[in-house]
Amino acid sequence: MIERIAILGTGLLGTSAGLALRAAGFGGTITGWNRSPDQVQVALAMGAIDSGAADPLQAARESQLILLAVPIYATLDFMEKLAGALGADHLVTDVGSTKRVISESAARLFNTPNRAAFLPGHPMAGKERGGAALADANLFRGAVWLFTDDPDAKRSAQSAALVKDWRKWVAAMGSKIIDLDPARHDELVAWVSHLPQFVATALSALLEDQVGDAPELKDVGGRGLREMTRLGASPYSMWRDIAHTNTEAVEAALHALEQRITHLRENLRTPELRVEFEKANRFRRE
Amino acid sequence: MIERIAILGTGLLGTSAGLALRAAGFGGTITGWNRSPDQVQVALAMGAIDSGAADPLQAARESQLILLAVPIYATLDFMEKLAGALGADHLVTDVGSTKRVISESAARLFNTPNRAAFLPGHPMAGKERGGAALADANLFRGAVWLFTDDPDAKRSAQSAALVKDWRKWVAAMGSKIIDLDPARHDELVAWVSHLPQFVATALSALLEDQVGDAPELKDVGGRGLREMTRLGASPYSMWRDIAHTNTEAVEAALHALEQRITHLRENLRTPELRVEFEKANRFRRE
Repeated sequence: MIERIAILGTGLLGTSAGLALRAAGFGGTITGWNRSPDQVQVALAMGAIDSGAADPLQAARESQLILLAVPIYATLDFMEKLAGALGADHLVTDVGSTKRVISESAARLFNTPNRAAFLPGHPMAGKERGGAALADANLFRGAVWLFTDDPDAKRSAQSAALVKDWRKWVAAMGSKIIDLDPARHDELVAWVSHLPQFVATALSALLEDQVGDAPELKDVGGRGLREMTRLGASPYSMWRDIAHTNTEAVEAALHALEQRITHLRENLRTPELRVEFEKANRFRRE
Repeated sequence: MIERIAILGTGLLGTSAGLALRAAGFGGTITGWNRSPDQVQVALAMGAIDSGAADPLQAARESQLILLAVPIYATLDFMEKLAGALGADHLVTDVGSTKRVISESAARLFNTPNRAAFLPGHPMAGKERGGAALADANLFRGAVWLFTDDPDAKRSAQSAALVKDWRKWVAAMGSKIIDLDPARHDELVAWVSHLPQFVATALSALLEDQVGDAPELKDVGGRGLREMTRLGASPYSMWRDIAHTNTEAVEAALHALEQRITHLRENLRTPELRVEFEKANRFRRE
């Protein structure tokens, strides 16, 4: 069914998707575009795309499946532009880390019988550093790929078939698909993804102030410290959009953690410390 | 020089030390004792020790080097008992995670010309789960091994030579030795080791309350969540002693992190978020 794909944004996720599609046996064409042309050259050299596009809208028009793999606000900008340029024989999907704002935009701009379909997606995969050069055909293997599709979408038969086919390709890339309501999605990822990131950022920034001038002392922390601060390398450019489009849920999660740390601090010498350790142990029990 | 070693506590660290000593070419005898005899059997089966001891004090007397690899309060108990049982031809060393209390006890009970030497030690290595079965000859390879020795120790020539020799064996096991003052040690590890642990515990306990009843949702967090909560599996039995013997420094570190998270939460939509991400990025830059 899907034979022509345009990947708009050949960074880490977009380029990895191209590689993963090829590895899963996708035999159609894949064209790629990126704001920085050098990222397109890297994706080409890696075999993730067949050709680079100069004009993302024209590349989208000439494709059936358009994968938006850019930050959230760039995704919203593309949605505005693509809605008028595409028709009922197109499916647009994305990889954005928050889904409420994107799903609202999709309901407004897509998913009527005369318009392109939009399937909001969110693969729970990535690295703390971006860029095509770090792309990996196995990035999505074993990962969860969330969709927050609209049950009220009124799609053409053609674009509905494209939705069905894209889900098959996502499964073929090795991902486990979970469908969620957009608001539930944003609340859930605030806990299991955004909270860990912002805590790692706060911890890393604090430790930079405390021991940043004595690099040999970072070694003292060993594996535990390395793991707890790895996400500290994540770029502001990506997380700004997440902080802006999921603010309330992230605030609530951070506030709950502040209170939890306070509780633990006030109980370092009481039996309550055991209760917290045992609860934490339960979370990690398989 | 060192030809007879007693490892009191054949759990993860003690058994790993036996394996690492053998791998580094130690050709003398190694005897092991553990409160749970089954851990001695595992250590024997793995080749970490040559024999199991029924009486830890007798095993210590018959050895030159006694490695205490038990929790902190158990280490303090052993120090009281060993001080009277040993003489100037013995060296006792430990692996406890806080060093102020142990170093004070060492100054009181050891390190005079007629008594055994005590060298307070702390290898920055471990796993979130303990036990001899998880022991690894390479556990200390590439890790930092901290010592907080007393510059005022008045040792016999014999026990001073044992100290020098044990330092060589620690280096031979692949560790990088760093010497610190005991108070500075406890303050440093509060930041780079105890803080990451207690944050992981608080985060894991919070997430157990939030999503513990929906195990499939843990998968959504992916690698980032797994890393940020791995230390959540650490046992209360070990961390209680750390919380009790380094309370003030851990309280200060936790309090600083609470304030840092609050600051980040209050700035999710301001340019200050960029400052925090860039500072965190600096901490992770090699």
